[in-house]
Amino acid sequence: MTIKDLFYKYIQELQDSITSKLEEVDDHATFQEDLWERPEGGGGRTRVIQNGEVFEKGGVNISAVHGALPESMQTYFGVQDADFFACGLSLVIHPKNPFVPTVHANWRYFEMYNKQGDIVDQWFGGGQDLTPYYLFEADASHFHSICKQACDAHDSSFYPKYKERCDTYFWNTHRNEARGVGGLFFDYLKADTTRSMQDWYNFVTEVGNSFLEAYIPIVQQRKAIAFTKAHRNWQEIRRGRYVEFNLVHDKGTLFGLRTNGRIESILMSLPPHVQWRYDHHPDKGSEEEKLVEVLKHPKAWV
Amino acid sequence: MTIKDLFYKYIQELQDSITSKLEEVDDHATFQEDLWERPEGGGGRTRVIQNGEVFEKGGVNISAVHGALPESMQTYFGVQDADFFACGLSLVIHPKNPFVPTVHANWRYFEMYNKQGDIVDQWFGGGQDLTPYYLFEADASHFHSICKQACDAHDSSFYPKYKERCDTYFWNTHRNEARGVGGLFFDYLKADTTRSMQDWYNFVTEVGNSFLEAYIPIVQQRKAIAFTKAHRNWQEIRRGRYVEFNLVHDKGTLFGLRTNGRIESILMSLPPHVQWRYDHHPDKGSEEEKLVEVLKHPKAWV
Repeated sequence: MTIKDLFYKYIQELQDSITSKLEEVDDHATFQEDLWERPEGGGGRTRVIQNGEVFEKGGVNISAVHGALPESMQTYFGVQDADFFACGLSLVIHPKNPFVPTVHANWRYFEMYNKQGDIVDQWFGGGQDLTPYYLFEADASHFHSICKQACDAHDSSFYPKYKERCDTYFWNTHRNEARGVGGLFFDYLKADTTRSMQDWYNFVTEVGNSFLEAYIPIVQQRKAIAFTKAHRNWQEIRRGRYVEFNLVHDKGTLFGLRTNGRIESILMSLPPHVQWRYDHHPDKGSEEEKLVEVLKHPKAWV
Repeated sequence: MTIKDLFYKYIQELQDSITSKLEEVDDHATFQEDLWERPEGGGGRTRVIQNGEVFEKGGVNISAVHGALPESMQTYFGVQDADFFACGLSLVIHPKNPFVPTVHANWRYFEMYNKQGDIVDQWFGGGQDLTPYYLFEADASHFHSICKQACDAHDSSFYPKYKERCDTYFWNTHRNEARGVGGLFFDYLKADTTRSMQDWYNFVTEVGNSFLEAYIPIVQQRKAIAFTKAHRNWQEIRRGRYVEFNLVHDKGTLFGLRTNGRIESILMSLPPHVQWRYDHHPDKGSEEEKLVEVLKHPKAWV
């Protein structure tokens, strides 16, 4: 089987295992599935959960698209007339309880072809990152430990490198703070003298396989903590920053919007209830301020 | 007095008259004023109202900034090393009642100088536009009639031209629908053989002076209509589209975010409570659908 077929099969199975685990944890709502087709070639399987006991809104989507490389992507990659194939799994989960963090993950594979159909370029990308509303250092450490473990199985240089890229990428420049407490972010993982595409496949799928272990124990630990309207307000205000990042800075989102992707699958990442208040600042010494401090000064978690 | 001084004086007074009228209509909340300075030169006077009887959140801001033209603006205007002065009034009002439309307006003036301090370019820009959540055709007609009246006092070609530019500008391309029912939008109003800067000043201030007459009667007419949670939900979902436009497409907002403007003054435009639901569509034949139809197919209102 080609890497492409292997990986597409992998993300289909991963979508199944992630959605069934999340449904089991929620124990109330189930995922709604929408199959869609891309007029220019390919399509996707979007799965969205809403109004759950634990998960207020979330999507776990896969897609595999192909055809002529859209003009905007030609410009972006600095190539002319080419064909492409891209597939990936993207997920964003917004829990109801403000003490349970939001999580995002993405694993993707890209191939580019010349007009003769030869592969002229191919790479993997992705990562996973955590966005808490209240900081439990143990949760951030747990999430990062699992990330590190998955990385270390392949190369001890991976975790520090991809952890830092994550902090850099998910930076809300106009707010001068991180979106969350990070995790991993990697892109353009290509074969070279030391690593084959199969090696990268093994690494990326190792990260994908670590996702549930990284996230679910945190959900289980925090989902029953009692919360007040004030905690919810803070969560909704912070979700506003999530929206700002995704709509102003996130390359994947903007790419999707500009290349005529399926809007509802792309924007499933936006939180269900959000607030913007003018010039809001948490009280000095509060738990809310403690979170902001860590977002302004990303730190080492393992 | 130079056009620059005249216009800056004008927007200061206009800010006063608009905020005092809005406070009178709200009869509960008042504007909070924040003065701010721009490290590189100039500053602003931000006035925000929150949690009013009528106005849930709104800002009526003025600023006057100057100094070396930031690099991003050099690229944008295709000029090198230059100095600039810019001043303007920006307002966005988000009413509480879903039957009262959101309104946005902006009137601005820009000057560019060479290193000797000579004015090498100068222009006015701005407009005003209405974003209802439920469509009252009479409201859209009223708003547009006042816009047309202000335009017609100067040139009968202005209203059709600036009405169309408004429909084009406030188009949420990724949703394939307008942000609202439009109004006026104009930019780069420069002196030519038929019109002096003083003529443009007269036109832009005529539009500015028409704002309260265009908006307040609509507020008065709709502010006491009883509404349900379902109406509010629809308003909050539609506000999501407002956020999408402002963060993904609005040149003013993105410019501000990229040029290190005062974030809280720029993002005062974002609504207080917002919802995103997956793949939400109004019921066939509903009032909600009637609005969407008009947003997808902008029409003539006068």
